[in-house]
Amino acid sequence: MDYMIGVDLGTTSTKAVLFDDQNQVVAQSNVGYTLYRDQTDMAEEDLDEIFVAFSNALGAVIRKANLAAGNTIKAVSFSSAMHSLIAFDQDWQPLTRVITWADTRAVDYTEELKDSGVGMEIYKKTGTPIHPMAPLSKVLWLKHEHPDIYQKAAHYLGIKEYLFHRLFGSNKMDISIASGTGLFNIFELDWDEQALELTGLSKEQLPETVSPYTYEQDMVAEYAAVLGIPRDVPFVYGAGDGPLSNLGVDAVQPGVAAITIGTSGAIRVVSDKPVIDPKGRTFTYALDRDHWVVGGPVNNGGDVFRWAKDNLFDAEKSTAALLGEDAYNLMTEIASKVPAGSDGLLFHPYLGGERAPIWDANARGSFFGLNHGHTRANMLRAVLEGITFNVYMVSLALEEVVGSLKSIQATGGFARSPLWRQMFADIFEQPVTVPEAFESGALAAVVVAQKALGQIDDLYEISKYVGKSDTYQPDPKNFEAYRDLAPIFIRLSRQLQTEYDNIANFQRKHVN
Amino acid sequence: MDYMIGVDLGTTSTKAVLFDDQNQVVAQSNVGYTLYRDQTDMAEEDLDEIFVAFSNALGAVIRKANLAAGNTIKAVSFSSAMHSLIAFDQDWQPLTRVITWADTRAVDYTEELKDSGVGMEIYKKTGTPIHPMAPLSKVLWLKHEHPDIYQKAAHYLGIKEYLFHRLFGSNKMDISIASGTGLFNIFELDWDEQALELTGLSKEQLPETVSPYTYEQDMVAEYAAVLGIPRDVPFVYGAGDGPLSNLGVDAVQPGVAAITIGTSGAIRVVSDKPVIDPKGRTFTYALDRDHWVVGGPVNNGGDVFRWAKDNLFDAEKSTAALLGEDAYNLMTEIASKVPAGSDGLLFHPYLGGERAPIWDANARGSFFGLNHGHTRANMLRAVLEGITFNVYMVSLALEEVVGSLKSIQATGGFARSPLWRQMFADIFEQPVTVPEAFESGALAAVVVAQKALGQIDDLYEISKYVGKSDTYQPDPKNFEAYRDLAPIFIRLSRQLQTEYDNIANFQRKHVN
Repeated sequence: MDYMIGVDLGTTSTKAVLFDDQNQVVAQSNVGYTLYRDQTDMAEEDLDEIFVAFSNALGAVIRKANLAAGNTIKAVSFSSAMHSLIAFDQDWQPLTRVITWADTRAVDYTEELKDSGVGMEIYKKTGTPIHPMAPLSKVLWLKHEHPDIYQKAAHYLGIKEYLFHRLFGSNKMDISIASGTGLFNIFELDWDEQALELTGLSKEQLPETVSPYTYEQDMVAEYAAVLGIPRDVPFVYGAGDGPLSNLGVDAVQPGVAAITIGTSGAIRVVSDKPVIDPKGRTFTYALDRDHWVVGGPVNNGGDVFRWAKDNLFDAEKSTAALLGEDAYNLMTEIASKVPAGSDGLLFHPYLGGERAPIWDANARGSFFGLNHGHTRANMLRAVLEGITFNVYMVSLALEEVVGSLKSIQATGGFARSPLWRQMFADIFEQPVTVPEAFESGALAAVVVAQKALGQIDDLYEISKYVGKSDTYQPDPKNFEAYRDLAPIFIRLSRQLQTEYDNIANFQRKHVN
Repeated sequence: MDYMIGVDLGTTSTKAVLFDDQNQVVAQSNVGYTLYRDQTDMAEEDLDEIFVAFSNALGAVIRKANLAAGNTIKAVSFSSAMHSLIAFDQDWQPLTRVITWADTRAVDYTEELKDSGVGMEIYKKTGTPIHPMAPLSKVLWLKHEHPDIYQKAAHYLGIKEYLFHRLFGSNKMDISIASGTGLFNIFELDWDEQALELTGLSKEQLPETVSPYTYEQDMVAEYAAVLGIPRDVPFVYGAGDGPLSNLGVDAVQPGVAAITIGTSGAIRVVSDKPVIDPKGRTFTYALDRDHWVVGGPVNNGGDVFRWAKDNLFDAEKSTAALLGEDAYNLMTEIASKVPAGSDGLLFHPYLGGERAPIWDANARGSFFGLNHGHTRANMLRAVLEGITFNVYMVSLALEEVVGSLKSIQATGGFARSPLWRQMFADIFEQPVTVPEAFESGALAAVVVAQKALGQIDDLYEISKYVGKSDTYQPDPKNFEAYRDLAPIFIRLSRQLQTEYDNIANFQRKHVN
């Protein structure tokens, strides 16, 4: 049997998925790592931890392929979290951990860029919203707050490029990941001169940009031995997890939005060219030269639900453990007993600041509307609804740029919850379909590999493999509550902007 | 031995306290009742439940007085929750439950009064802020929303007058309670013509107003037998719990503020005449003709902490039960581990709308500033700090009307918590003293009885009996955090006003 492996490099875990030659999932392995939040605004990963997790996940599915029995792995291909940054010295020794998209310490330099108007100039060429998530801002932060590191830094990579560098000694970045750095001109398909000048970087410090279909074949022997894989198996660069997700759920037709809620979340639609938002709210990232994904990323998805589980609903977590049940299932069951609108309790999910729709790294979370009748069950449902209202707010901005949305393809952790899927259908008032293959990122990576190896001509072949499971229809009996609440949610998130700045400044000043 | 009994009629319980002839507490009994919140804005008590609770509490301390052994009860005197309303038909059959101060269903009629300017005209004569708490607003609500009851209502009383009516067949109200109805002209010391005209009431429907030193002596024989008390023991009308509280804690000198946080809370100073606030934010209630108490009442005190205990921190409540500890003690212990300022988490305690400082029955509670580092311990401390910041905000308004405050006499449930006392000292930056006699309301009622019976000439005799326990000095190391947070707290509560209206309307529309 011929196999392919799709690797999904996420923010808190790496997943490797083994596909057979019919693109059916045969095996998978998921290994987690820590997202270090030593300070309020920090969000880093450890390089060795990531490498070990990656090796363990990949090694596990390679063993399932049972190469000794004559089976073959035709390729390994990648879907990767975007916007990460690692600095290396001239000997390729790391000077930083992985500074992830979720790290917002660069907020002051972002504000400067926005205020001066330079940010908008650069956004219009790079398609990456001006935000601390982007390597552009992170380099400015290093330059001002860690000049020692900035001076020593001879190379910069992201998480996926680091793994390739370690496995193959390469120094390359696919144009999809590059299009999320804030340093890459999406119209010229090269590093942007103005961005380089602003950050003081030379092209030599940045990796060579390559097509997502590029692959490497000469793995360092030691790693090949550990992984149990022949050295010449092609490792395809693949692309960013956002763009691949649209492909992976077959959300490629006009008006079909892909919504993912994993640790973070996003809503995206495919376009055949880059699309710039005059208000700077949406991104345009490459899937490849001919396919662009336009959308808005939200910081606050499953990560917020996890915060709620660990800090607010630890009693329910313990109860679930006693019952031998999944804590999230128990929590959504409790939330399902509360009517749509949570009896008038609103939650703004901005625990980690927010990207789309408000692009405010200083934003913070809030419960609003508490009265004596509210219980923890109301708070639980409000958390789920708040995450959903926020994505809905992004969709309104997206519609201004790319036109009306018609339906939703849902993936990520939330897609497993019937309650949450129905909530999306009711708030968006659109049908929500969940693709049968949940491993859409890995599947899309594998389809990219098939094109890279010349097995297929067209990426859209993927639609054969993306089944449909349930479609959730919007339930009109819930429309009124949500229509009444959404405007309050939206107005509040704008109105609170000044105080977001003030409370975030307080937190930076008073919390180590 | 000669005894006196002070009865404290509260919102959720009645307490009877037996004092010896040195005004020392000999025994006490506290019996609770339900505050019915069948709907979001309702807060009612059951008449029979209250009467039974009152009888049980009073009967218990009468038995302790052991009259059979030759001891004597010289008087029973009252401190009572203010602003309650009960309607009776011409045969004195109740047409309503006790509609308490906490009931805000009259909000629309209050808004009308405010908007038309009529409210301010009436406030300037009655000293009662225009708010759903006041019987003025409650009668307007009955008139429009329960015209059947309004038409049949031949008599209106408050909770204390109801007990007197049942025990003695009387129809009287002391001027202290009357000064909190919004219907009583505090300069003329009679029911206000404009307020009567507005509500369509005649003086015949309202009780005779009397001095707090008035008493009754011919108890219905059946009740005297049940209580085990001679029919001729004087029952002194006493006064409202707010004014008596200042007396009871010896907060009668200029600049000495009494702060009480019980179910609700208040901050008050004594004046020798009524003082009207041009902005309508403070009340002036009579203690007697020569003593007036100026201040601001807050809805959201211990009631909010109890909501938090029952709904947010039920896990801690269970743990406390397992440990055989008091849940509040465990909760404040957890909160004490968090630094001042709760790591930048703010809580607005307006679960039941708010009176002072914002006078907005539509206000609702919120947590603001949530980030990934916050835990339940942060939320706990934020709840305590939020209740405190809110009282601090009232003190700023009060200082505009009566001049600078210098020190705080603290009573009520919060005074039992060292953490909370220190928090008040640190936020107000003033020393906080806790009177030794915690039963200050009952003590003050007894001192009123002593003046009524001619045993003393001057109410200020009470200072002999009000000891001082600990004084908490403000701790400068906490000033910075609180000085940074207080302005955010204050600005937010103003900024959110429009959305308070919208979310409260949602809650009325969508919750039963």
